[in-house]
Amino acid sequence: MLYIHVPEQGDHWQALLQAALPEMPVLAAPSEVDTDQVRFLATWRPPEGLFARFPRLEAVFALGAGVDRFLARPDLDPAVALIRLSDAGMARQMLEYVQFGLLRFQRRMDEYRALQTQGSWQVLAQRDASELRVSVLGLGAIGGQVALGLAAAGYRVSGWSRSAKALPGVRCLHGEAALDTLLGETDALVMILPNTPATRGLLDARRLQLLPSGAIVINAGRGEQLDLDALLAGLRSGALGGAQLDVFPEEPLPAEHPAWQTPRLHITPHVAAMTLPAPSALQVAANLRALLAGQRPQGLVDRARAY
Amino acid sequence: MLYIHVPEQGDHWQALLQAALPEMPVLAAPSEVDTDQVRFLATWRPPEGLFARFPRLEAVFALGAGVDRFLARPDLDPAVALIRLSDAGMARQMLEYVQFGLLRFQRRMDEYRALQTQGSWQVLAQRDASELRVSVLGLGAIGGQVALGLAAAGYRVSGWSRSAKALPGVRCLHGEAALDTLLGETDALVMILPNTPATRGLLDARRLQLLPSGAIVINAGRGEQLDLDALLAGLRSGALGGAQLDVFPEEPLPAEHPAWQTPRLHITPHVAAMTLPAPSALQVAANLRALLAGQRPQGLVDRARAY
Repeated sequence: MLYIHVPEQGDHWQALLQAALPEMPVLAAPSEVDTDQVRFLATWRPPEGLFARFPRLEAVFALGAGVDRFLARPDLDPAVALIRLSDAGMARQMLEYVQFGLLRFQRRMDEYRALQTQGSWQVLAQRDASELRVSVLGLGAIGGQVALGLAAAGYRVSGWSRSAKALPGVRCLHGEAALDTLLGETDALVMILPNTPATRGLLDARRLQLLPSGAIVINAGRGEQLDLDALLAGLRSGALGGAQLDVFPEEPLPAEHPAWQTPRLHITPHVAAMTLPAPSALQVAANLRALLAGQRPQGLVDRARAY
Repeated sequence: MLYIHVPEQGDHWQALLQAALPEMPVLAAPSEVDTDQVRFLATWRPPEGLFARFPRLEAVFALGAGVDRFLARPDLDPAVALIRLSDAGMARQMLEYVQFGLLRFQRRMDEYRALQTQGSWQVLAQRDASELRVSVLGLGAIGGQVALGLAAAGYRVSGWSRSAKALPGVRCLHGEAALDTLLGETDALVMILPNTPATRGLLDARRLQLLPSGAIVINAGRGEQLDLDALLAGLRSGALGGAQLDVFPEEPLPAEHPAWQTPRLHITPHVAAMTLPAPSALQVAANLRALLAGQRPQGLVDRARAY
């Protein structure tokens, strides 16, 4: 049996997954379930102790792209397969979010908005996409698609990842030493990194200072990867041209946090890429069938790499 | 000789065009010129009487996409060929402008901005691109590229033009009757029409009311094509969800115009697609060589169609 535990829309997920998996019973919380019968669990924001309730659990399907909060859970037996969604419509949403952030600064849309409140018709100089050096950190299933999409949109795109990658039209770099050099040649930094011990704190104060004057920062990975205080200082001093952040070290970002009122910083509440139930259900069904057939499912998490 | 008359950056245009046309003398205003020697003129915002100064003029190169203001000029002999830029980097800029306008509403970025000022972390429902019916009016060199770009970005794109067109992935309609039907099925209306007698006043109050409740309007064509008062009324009543306008019946938009302070209306000062000198100079050079070789240049204006 596949059991679903999600904070909302449980009925919707149940209907979609049952339709995609007619050969298997599918139940969703808060329905009663014989916990011995549950071999598979599909969940997002699992409450403490959830995993320990199912003694015969074989696999957990995380209904999102990030699994750092799953890996940190003591109640999830490392022998249980953990499978994340590998795209399911999220890459396109992420590309939208990043493009919006780039255009907001490149096309000076916030400044035009401010001029509008004054009734002022004033043409501002703008940079062409081909002049903007955009560096995408993280070239996984989502980051790779974002890098390709930005290259297609005309930006000068570099990509950086832990291991070597190759993407057409994208200058691909890897390794820590390359990162420092890359930051010095970056007009717009786009962070779409998985949350792993290796990426935590990656953009610290020292690295942020390697960015050229006026650079912009877009973080749609995880808040822990970026030194928020250093970023805010860079925005206030004018060293950084602007930022659009979707993720924060503490979420929700506390109402009294100074980030909310920092100039040229745009805050969104972790919505850059939201799970779309319909394509996600199809992906879970395909991965579950792969598991049953003894094949390796797409999105199987490697605990050593933490994604 | 090719003579250049532009309101600014004359030296820059002169250098670019001379480099692209080493076989021909190129001069730019305000340099002195023997007007009898000028066979070709490259200009933008030509002052009154400019054309009449050159008795041997064979062709005028308009350094922009819109030529309505050239066609209305009594000093421009209809026997002189008029050639406009047919893309030269403008399609990509236009696509950026339209995508920004769509995302601003689809991804609720203005609402997140308002929530930010209150220090409020609140997730809002958002529509997927695949659910948004976007209708592009005008499928010329620029509008066609915009329609294709929006389709590639995942939107459900229809295109409308005076004459029949075919674009892969875009539902193409033409003719006045089809327009009324299309408007009733449009979540986002994107106007990239040339300014001709046939498009002037096209989006009048009656047609705007055919749009479904909450539809958004992006106009990057010409201000005369849209009834601005009717649009403002629709925004104020809530019938329209929002608008992003780059063009107006009177430009600059007067400082006292109520449009500036209309809710959910975003105003930019005719900057959606700005002429990029470098690619434009190459296009002028190629078209001038085509003329000299007795070939039809790309962008030759048909005065009967007015574009």
